Amino acid sequence: MFQRILVANRGEIALRVIRACREMGIETVAVFSEADRGAHYLSLADEAYCIGPAAATDSYLMINRIISAAEIGNVQAIHPGYGFLAENAHFAEVCRSCNIEFIGPPHEAMAQLGDKVSAREIAKAANVNVSPGTEGLVTDEAEALRVAQEIGYPVLIKATAGGGGKGMRVARNDISLKAGLKAAAAEAEAAFKNAGVYIEKYIENPRHIEVQIMADNHGNVLHLWERDCSLQRRHQKLVEESPAPNLPQSVREDICKAACRLIEQAGYTNAGTVEFLVGPDNQFYFIEVNARIQVEHPVSEEVTGLDLIKQQIRVAAGEKLELKQKNVPCNGSAIELRINAEDPDNDFRGSPGKITKLRVPAGPGVRFDSHIYEGYTVGPYYDSLIGKLIVHRPTREESLACMRRCLDEFVIEGIKTTIPLAKKIFNHSAFIEGKVDTTFIERTW
Amino acid sequence: MFQRILVANRGEIALRVIRACREMGIETVAVFSEADRGAHYLSLADEAYCIGPAAATDSYLMINRIISAAEIGNVQAIHPGYGFLAENAHFAEVCRSCNIEFIGPPHEAMAQLGDKVSAREIAKAANVNVSPGTEGLVTDEAEALRVAQEIGYPVLIKATAGGGGKGMRVARNDISLKAGLKAAAAEAEAAFKNAGVYIEKYIENPRHIEVQIMADNHGNVLHLWERDCSLQRRHQKLVEESPAPNLPQSVREDICKAACRLIEQAGYTNAGTVEFLVGPDNQFYFIEVNARIQVEHPVSEEVTGLDLIKQQIRVAAGEKLELKQKNVPCNGSAIELRINAEDPDNDFRGSPGKITKLRVPAGPGVRFDSHIYEGYTVGPYYDSLIGKLIVHRPTREESLACMRRCLDEFVIEGIKTTIPLAKKIFNHSAFIEGKVDTTFIERTW
Repeated sequence: MFQRILVANRGEIALRVIRACREMGIETVAVFSEADRGAHYLSLADEAYCIGPAAATDSYLMINRIISAAEIGNVQAIHPGYGFLAENAHFAEVCRSCNIEFIGPPHEAMAQLGDKVSAREIAKAANVNVSPGTEGLVTDEAEALRVAQEIGYPVLIKATAGGGGKGMRVARNDISLKAGLKAAAAEAEAAFKNAGVYIEKYIENPRHIEVQIMADNHGNVLHLWERDCSLQRRHQKLVEESPAPNLPQSVREDICKAACRLIEQAGYTNAGTVEFLVGPDNQFYFIEVNARIQVEHPVSEEVTGLDLIKQQIRVAAGEKLELKQKNVPCNGSAIELRINAEDPDNDFRGSPGKITKLRVPAGPGVRFDSHIYEGYTVGPYYDSLIGKLIVHRPTREESLACMRRCLDEFVIEGIKTTIPLAKKIFNHSAFIEGKVDTTFIERTW
Repeated sequence: MFQRILVANRGEIALRVIRACREMGIETVAVFSEADRGAHYLSLADEAYCIGPAAATDSYLMINRIISAAEIGNVQAIHPGYGFLAENAHFAEVCRSCNIEFIGPPHEAMAQLGDKVSAREIAKAANVNVSPGTEGLVTDEAEALRVAQEIGYPVLIKATAGGGGKGMRVARNDISLKAGLKAAAAEAEAAFKNAGVYIEKYIENPRHIEVQIMADNHGNVLHLWERDCSLQRRHQKLVEESPAPNLPQSVREDICKAACRLIEQAGYTNAGTVEFLVGPDNQFYFIEVNARIQVEHPVSEEVTGLDLIKQQIRVAAGEKLELKQKNVPCNGSAIELRINAEDPDNDFRGSPGKITKLRVPAGPGVRFDSHIYEGYTVGPYYDSLIGKLIVHRPTREESLACMRRCLDEFVIEGIKTTIPLAKKIFNHSAFIEGKVDTTFIERTW
């Protein structure tokens, strides 16, 4: 087992990894930007090195500085968290070439799955549904029009290197397809230096269902059941839960098995998430693999009782998964709410500032994963996520009641947060009944 | 179901009951002494009434003021928490005579079990082991000497009305027995206005094992498995856990069944705890029933997944227990640590004061039940308990690692706490190996 790990991230996920390491008896080296200097979570690491100024491009994204810190800190492995360099295959490769284990998948699998066109090919080879569309990249307009006729409008134009909604357009007829192709390619070239786009059937009003995977280096692939992350605002997840409400058991089992097949096909190991869109007819279509630990991993931890960060570290150290699939439980209902420092009355712009008062809810089945405290200053530089409120109760009804109680109890003063929006969500009948799709927030508010 | 409940307590247990009620959609009325005015948890109740000055005898123990608040607040039930009036059979009777449900056992059962001699008789009638001793009260010295000869020294002299170690003496020979009888009777007369004492065999180096019970008004009695509370300092529990380590499965099942028999025999309903001493030979002896919810109830909540406060309320409202015994799980390992505002370097004297800095540990499997926050002032008037840190992990080894991590992380400034002692306990090999008895703390430090 590793004796010392560098945590190449910040905020709640850095704290989460440090906590797991401490429980495993592993020392940690933290890195921080000037903006995070003095944050309390850094004091929980055994060492901490400054790697640059506030801007992430000058600190948390600087591969050479992180590798330097790893060498000075004499670590055997790096945990990348999520975001920043977590899905950068080049970073993973650099780590390993420096003889430092990257706690994540093989960089080859990461690179292949990071390209959407090759990821679709892997899915097809694993007999996993993808939405109908072009075989590879679209090279000319005529072919695009032919494919759109074949699969039927609406269609989605997507950048092969895309992410975060960039290089993506919905087309509902020939005219918007022609315009969209040019716009998407130009946007993709600008954002990713890769103009390649492809076309697929656009699934209307889908649910977003994803499967948590854990695979070791000895050929064992486990799924940790599914999460429903349909509740999104501008492609950003707000609420995640497990199990998915109103999902027939047969669909649930099929989708989990499909995810395992795909992961095996890709030669993927460590923690990962296979994302699907599920239509109103419960047909499901592969979207992409998130080749990292995700923000929403705690809901799967709660229902299975497993610690995913510890599992990641054990797998990276070469250990075998001890558990068998049939022994992975899914107990009760877990729901996570992301709490962001944003102003709901001002178009959800970031709301940095000092937290002047903080009362965090607690009690049976309540977990708050966060690096904040009274007196903490939320900076303007990074993601607006300030904490994740997770509830785990025997039934979904009880989890909802528990979350409503927690939201009523939560006091955060000094900054604006998404808690008022969350209160509306958890009191809305469509959400309570488990009947929301990815368009719910935009349609409703 | 009740629409409105009065919470006749303070601090963490008042907050715990308020939270449960909120999740059930039940309004709450809080009561507070002058010393607790302005405490944050009071703002989470729907109403709050001051019932007197700081001294508990002038506020939290004033039955007439609590009943007045209940009538002004128009509640249908009162939850007494633990301590204060929780085991006062007269209070339970007064509540019910005012047509207000007392959320606890029938006052008749409470009175019978509150008297140690009659509790022993109930145990015997239920075929539950009690330590050998006098049939009833000891009326003269000659009889005491005869019984002591019969059962063998050492013996324990106990007040029938006793509690908290008062009116209790260990005698190891005839001389100390004669002296102890007089001293115990005098102490009991002073403390409880009841000089009655009895004699039982003194169990050397015992473990303290107790069984959590929940019984409804329809004849259903469930046990929620056992807790090991052997780690005590001066008869005060410090650490509680479930399941008990190194307890043979057959003893575990026998002790749980014995507790159920005793509860049935007593006509007891609602939550309760049957306490036993377990000798080094795993023979177990009934001590007493705690006729209330206990401080350490969260460990049973964690391993069973049940919410005991909600169950108490449902049972008091006349609902049936839905669960069957065979479906009460005992998942993983849960450990609770009581954190007291006491100075370990000054004979554990109370350490009141303002909390100037507070960083509470969190993460998977961590629960902190507490009413404190940064800026809260711990007063000198009541119990020194300021919070309960509960961990729940798949194995005892992981729970211990999690607790050590939490203790390293915990920051409480401005007052002294028992955290330094807790760190010693959780790093001591005897505790790690599950081999402590009730004398461990005094013998070791």
